[in-house]
Amino acid sequence: MTTATLPLKPITEDFKEAVAFALSQHEAARAFVAEVVEGGLRNVFLVGCGGSLTASYPVHFLLETRAGFPVFHMNSDEFNLRKPALLGEGSLVLVSSHTGTTKETVAAAHYAKSTGAKVAALTRDDDSPLAQAADIAFTYRSEDTVVAPKGVLFGQLAYALLEKTGVEGDYAAIRKAYEALPDALYTAQEEGEALAHTIATALADEPVTYVLSAGPNYGAGYGFTMCYLMEMQWKHGGSYHAGEFFHGAFEVVTEDQPVILFLGEDATRPMAERTRRFLDKYTRKAHYVDSRIFSLPGVPEELRGDITPIALDVFGTRLARHYESVRGHDLDKRRYMFQVEY
Amino acid sequence: MTTATLPLKPITEDFKEAVAFALSQHEAARAFVAEVVEGGLRNVFLVGCGGSLTASYPVHFLLETRAGFPVFHMNSDEFNLRKPALLGEGSLVLVSSHTGTTKETVAAAHYAKSTGAKVAALTRDDDSPLAQAADIAFTYRSEDTVVAPKGVLFGQLAYALLEKTGVEGDYAAIRKAYEALPDALYTAQEEGEALAHTIATALADEPVTYVLSAGPNYGAGYGFTMCYLMEMQWKHGGSYHAGEFFHGAFEVVTEDQPVILFLGEDATRPMAERTRRFLDKYTRKAHYVDSRIFSLPGVPEELRGDITPIALDVFGTRLARHYESVRGHDLDKRRYMFQVEY
Repeated sequence: MTTATLPLKPITEDFKEAVAFALSQHEAARAFVAEVVEGGLRNVFLVGCGGSLTASYPVHFLLETRAGFPVFHMNSDEFNLRKPALLGEGSLVLVSSHTGTTKETVAAAHYAKSTGAKVAALTRDDDSPLAQAADIAFTYRSEDTVVAPKGVLFGQLAYALLEKTGVEGDYAAIRKAYEALPDALYTAQEEGEALAHTIATALADEPVTYVLSAGPNYGAGYGFTMCYLMEMQWKHGGSYHAGEFFHGAFEVVTEDQPVILFLGEDATRPMAERTRRFLDKYTRKAHYVDSRIFSLPGVPEELRGDITPIALDVFGTRLARHYESVRGHDLDKRRYMFQVEY
Repeated sequence: MTTATLPLKPITEDFKEAVAFALSQHEAARAFVAEVVEGGLRNVFLVGCGGSLTASYPVHFLLETRAGFPVFHMNSDEFNLRKPALLGEGSLVLVSSHTGTTKETVAAAHYAKSTGAKVAALTRDDDSPLAQAADIAFTYRSEDTVVAPKGVLFGQLAYALLEKTGVEGDYAAIRKAYEALPDALYTAQEEGEALAHTIATALADEPVTYVLSAGPNYGAGYGFTMCYLMEMQWKHGGSYHAGEFFHGAFEVVTEDQPVILFLGEDATRPMAERTRRFLDKYTRKAHYVDSRIFSLPGVPEELRGDITPIALDVFGTRLARHYESVRGHDLDKRRYMFQVEY
């Protein structure tokens, strides 16, 4: 049983500043993309590990649903060993690592460069090994605010790619919505506090928690499970795709089985809603993180589905803080990461 | 504690026959692929749910590492709602469902056809809704032997695509190895029995089991977790990519934490070996399913990595039978699937 608690850490102090700093690199992103597209773009690879792979699910979805070029998304070591046949000149590789030192990811940047691909790093600082290995680095300069600015850096590169390759879209409206994000995502965190507290309190002592998500929101569920529940709380978790759930995983659900379901407002929402109907019926311990609770001021209704994957991912960071507080388990505690060689 | 047991069901009686029947459709596969490629092939989509999505991981890897066209791999409902921008004329969609009645997958076939794509069904019988919705159906006509012939049907289509699109390779040698599969995969099951019994006995009463795999073998680990451990044994499980494991999930490992790791013989083996080194050090309950225990007669050394993903996937079916026997939990028992509407 959880007995010790820790004070709830507040929303990160530099939140708006870090997101605004990411936004300030918009013109640099557009200029880089213009150069890449004019040089002949064949395809895009999204590469990273853990939370940094998570951060690119929204743009994987965005590009796959709209772009005229193929997009691939994979773990850095898988990328290094798989050696995709389509990687080479004409490829743009977006590699991400918070510290810029993740060894597989730094290796991925070097490997990609060696094939003739263009490489952009999305990372904290511009002097890390990853940033140095890339053609260009987009940064957020914060140790505390990571998920939101990383989402913005990925997003503005993806929209620049769509616009530059001639895909129709109201890019001025999208830009306006992005410029609202420092405030909108800050407010979303405030709006999510009660739900985050409810979930963390209800599930603090549960032995196994499943987390479901789909479409552009898959990363929010996967990242919460992998990086927060398991890595930072040492809790057992299974992350499954909300549609795949019905083809196996759902058989473990009983009325006492905790499940967290993320619901966004994109085209895949009906899949998450189907999952919610099932959970409503068969477990008393379902918790729904529905982006509709976020007001997202400045984001017009028709663009919410593009933004809600980032809002859900940011919610995960607050949910982790509530787990930390309720369970008295510091998010910085590690058994292996940064502790031992592996 | 597990007390009841069930008799161990033998290797399926029609195993060799079902695999041979899949192999007998080789010329039909080549003729279909020739027509598709000559009509102008732009890309390939691999679509299915659960075990049928699992079955296409090996060819996703195979094509991504060798083909000159892009390949995409996704759950049927994700496909239907995502509506990939590159889907349409010039697309080949390989859709799979054992019964041929999985509603999302039948819908995927209809949707793909409506965009102008060519659709091939990989399914049990040629008179199911899925087979009827597709341009062509490749079948295995068995209720009991599913994984191996499905793997063969996917594989021979993939090699036909590589050969027809001019990718270099010793296709005669590959064909010879495939023709050895009815016997080789049967023998592999016999060779795996002792290990399967050991794992099932050791982990029968464990509350949570993690399963790790990567590269073309990812499906073997994912499918075992999703379809056997969770669906057919109602056991808690988490399936993670062996490389991603180091970016979060590994923090839950203690000396008492069961983990099953699948190791194949393809280019991603070093990633699985890194994971094994970690598990050797930090848990006493690691179990390794290393394809090197399979002799695979008729498969030359240099082609083993192409075949081992199927062998590992087939091993999963035997491991499930051993769990069934040791735990006395019938693999046919379901709470929801085929029992209720969802």
